[in-house]
Amino acid sequence: MSHATRDWDSLWLNVHLATMRPGAGYGEITDGAIAVHEGKIAWIGPRNALPAGARAGQEHDGGGAWLTPGLIDCHTHAVYAGNRSDEWEARLNGVPYEQIARQGGGIVSTVRATRAASFDELLQASLPRVRALMAEGLTTLEIKSGYGLDLANEEKMLRVAREIGRLTGLDVRTTFLGAHALPPEYAGRADDYIGEVCETMLPALAGQGLVDAVDAFCENIGFTPAQTERVFLAAKQHGLPVKLHAEQLSDQGGAQLTARYGGLSADHLEHLSAEGIAAMAAAGTVAVLLPGAFYFLRDTRLPPVEALRQAGVPMAIATDCNPGTSPMTSLLLAMNMACTVFRLTPREALAGATLNAARALGLAESIGSLEVGKKADFALWNIDRPGDLAYAMGFNPCALSVKAGEIR
Amino acid sequence: MSHATRDWDSLWLNVHLATMRPGAGYGEITDGAIAVHEGKIAWIGPRNALPAGARAGQEHDGGGAWLTPGLIDCHTHAVYAGNRSDEWEARLNGVPYEQIARQGGGIVSTVRATRAASFDELLQASLPRVRALMAEGLTTLEIKSGYGLDLANEEKMLRVAREIGRLTGLDVRTTFLGAHALPPEYAGRADDYIGEVCETMLPALAGQGLVDAVDAFCENIGFTPAQTERVFLAAKQHGLPVKLHAEQLSDQGGAQLTARYGGLSADHLEHLSAEGIAAMAAAGTVAVLLPGAFYFLRDTRLPPVEALRQAGVPMAIATDCNPGTSPMTSLLLAMNMACTVFRLTPREALAGATLNAARALGLAESIGSLEVGKKADFALWNIDRPGDLAYAMGFNPCALSVKAGEIR
Ligand SMILES: [Zn+2]
Ligand SMILES: [Zn+2]
Repeated sequence: MSHATRDWDSLWLNVHLATMRPGAGYGEITDGAIAVHEGKIAWIGPRNALPAGARAGQEHDGGGAWLTPGLIDCHTHAVYAGNRSDEWEARLNGVPYEQIARQGGGIVSTVRATRAASFDELLQASLPRVRALMAEGLTTLEIKSGYGLDLANEEKMLRVAREIGRLTGLDVRTTFLGAHALPPEYAGRADDYIGEVCETMLPALAGQGLVDAVDAFCENIGFTPAQTERVFLAAKQHGLPVKLHAEQLSDQGGAQLTARYGGLSADHLEHLSAEGIAAMAAAGTVAVLLPGAFYFLRDTRLPPVEALRQAGVPMAIATDCNPGTSPMTSLLLAMNMACTVFRLTPREALAGATLNAARALGLAESIGSLEVGKKADFALWNIDRPGDLAYAMGFNPCALSVKAGEIR
Repeated sequence: MSHATRDWDSLWLNVHLATMRPGAGYGEITDGAIAVHEGKIAWIGPRNALPAGARAGQEHDGGGAWLTPGLIDCHTHAVYAGNRSDEWEARLNGVPYEQIARQGGGIVSTVRATRAASFDELLQASLPRVRALMAEGLTTLEIKSGYGLDLANEEKMLRVAREIGRLTGLDVRTTFLGAHALPPEYAGRADDYIGEVCETMLPALAGQGLVDAVDAFCENIGFTPAQTERVFLAAKQHGLPVKLHAEQLSDQGGAQLTARYGGLSADHLEHLSAEGIAAMAAAGTVAVLLPGAFYFLRDTRLPPVEALRQAGVPMAIATDCNPGTSPMTSLLLAMNMACTVFRLTPREALAGATLNAARALGLAESIGSLEVGKKADFALWNIDRPGDLAYAMGFNPCALSVKAGEIR
């Protein structure tokens, strides 16, 4: 074949497109076509607008499926060892929380198991969760550290996350969450631990290229705003973007703090204030909503969705996949919960798992919507309309997914 | 091989068992063994108690998996055509319910689509839902009619349900739900329609062996208790067991009515009264809880779980799979919701999807627990403990399932 500028590696026909390009709702194109060249989207539009004589190395028949951007889970703790179903069951059986904590339950139990696991054990424990997420057309995944809480084990977690990317072909974005919880050996010395996070762990891990962003848990039961700011300052010194577990259980002003540091996202946000919303809107900080945790914890305080909408703060949706508060490995289910529980529209839920999730990872230039020049990451779905993705509960209509132009 | 009484068709080793036999909680047997002969369970116990010299035609290594009874979904409307994500989305987009109803939304839209579908179209529309349920170790499935609402179309639905059983190898139990809603052509003539249900439809369908049980929707927006009783009387005349959609939106005394007719189950039950509970307990009527519908409708009135527990009423869990109020095709997710939202214990949730679901179908003599003489219907799970089944959200750990002794 010739190598005229219109030649493409592949061309998808007989598909309907939900492009999710900014400001266009679903950006629906009925009977569309999408061309891929060198792993990127080279042309997109209605089939009947295809340039005359355009040729592709391969032509794929989408069989009338809907084609959307690949899904993006922008907030997970998917790498961990151990299993906390036992304490969940104990609580449902009526055992008081204090007794479970006394018996070593809670996050420290995951820290213990994660520290005890070898690299390979941690990888094998985590892969099934990632594969479950992938089966729903996921092409990009954020994974946090935060169950190691010392240099060696945080490094192990981040290396496992990178290895998951290598093995699965997913784009994995790693987030250093050393300031997730106070490790037992630092009991009563939170400031000392933050010093270790900022002066030892972060420099070592960033120096090895293991850190794409830095996160913290700013909460009554986590770290103070002042401690969080020390972490953010250290991140800035290493040129790394920040994000925050903010206002989940109380209003700590974490959203404003994150916005002040130009943060990518503030996540959870059930107790977010009007000031926090204004600061996020001004800074372009994404609101990452985590309905799985809200549901699993039987929270009653809803995040201020309507105010976020009015302020124009982009809303992303993520699973928060973790063993304590959201043992969830379905981003489609998180989208359903975002609609059912938080009253997002199905369009907002899909944007929350594509374009706005990309924004929350600082990747909106290259992924999150179907636009010429972006990576050819997409999913094909056997559905009647895009709203079906958030509507169903426990059904996976993904026919196949495509990563950088290659069928996965 | 010889044919001594101890010879079995197959033997499963290297498995942990959750037998779910009555009164034993999970009935856990660590490092158990289970033998199958002629499709039934021939021996079960700890591996080290296996009779000396016992031989099986085939030996299976379960790889350390947990083995439970096959799951049973005892309340579904899984056979339907059409898709109501559009009206769900419209409501989330702020369109008032009245406008959606005026535009032909609601159950009548499913009736229209189901009537318009051919047998094969209806089958093809329904099979993916059933296969999603099956993928989670399901071996028995109840399917209701109720979107045809005339003889020909109710028959079509029930025949599709039977065909699904044939194609998938599932045991499908059919329920005639002619009294689901008033068809448009009977507007204002509910008593006449009930006459048609009792005098024309039920005799014809029962006569063709298409009906295993009879159900109705007793509610302000459904049929009155008097109309429901006419349906129950007709069922009794045909020797068919009854069940009821009862006390979902209001207390109609439907549970007592069902108990009075020796009903298999009363389902939903958010508004169930103390009298209803007592009647169910006395009659042995199962309480079928449908947390998917509760969740999807954002209901706030919880069913009286603690009172049911105290009264010893068996509680089953089902998906209520239907396009209007519970588009759910995961019984594991229903189990998670039963725990998270209704506060059942994980053990109760698993009993609700096995033993008590079998009771709700009148099949507890032959399925629902791992006991000698029952059908060899079981599922193997890659989990650490039985509680994991209800704990995870959107994860399917089913390694394989076995139907009447055969690996599926
Ligand atoms: Zn988190
Ligand atoms: Zn129902």
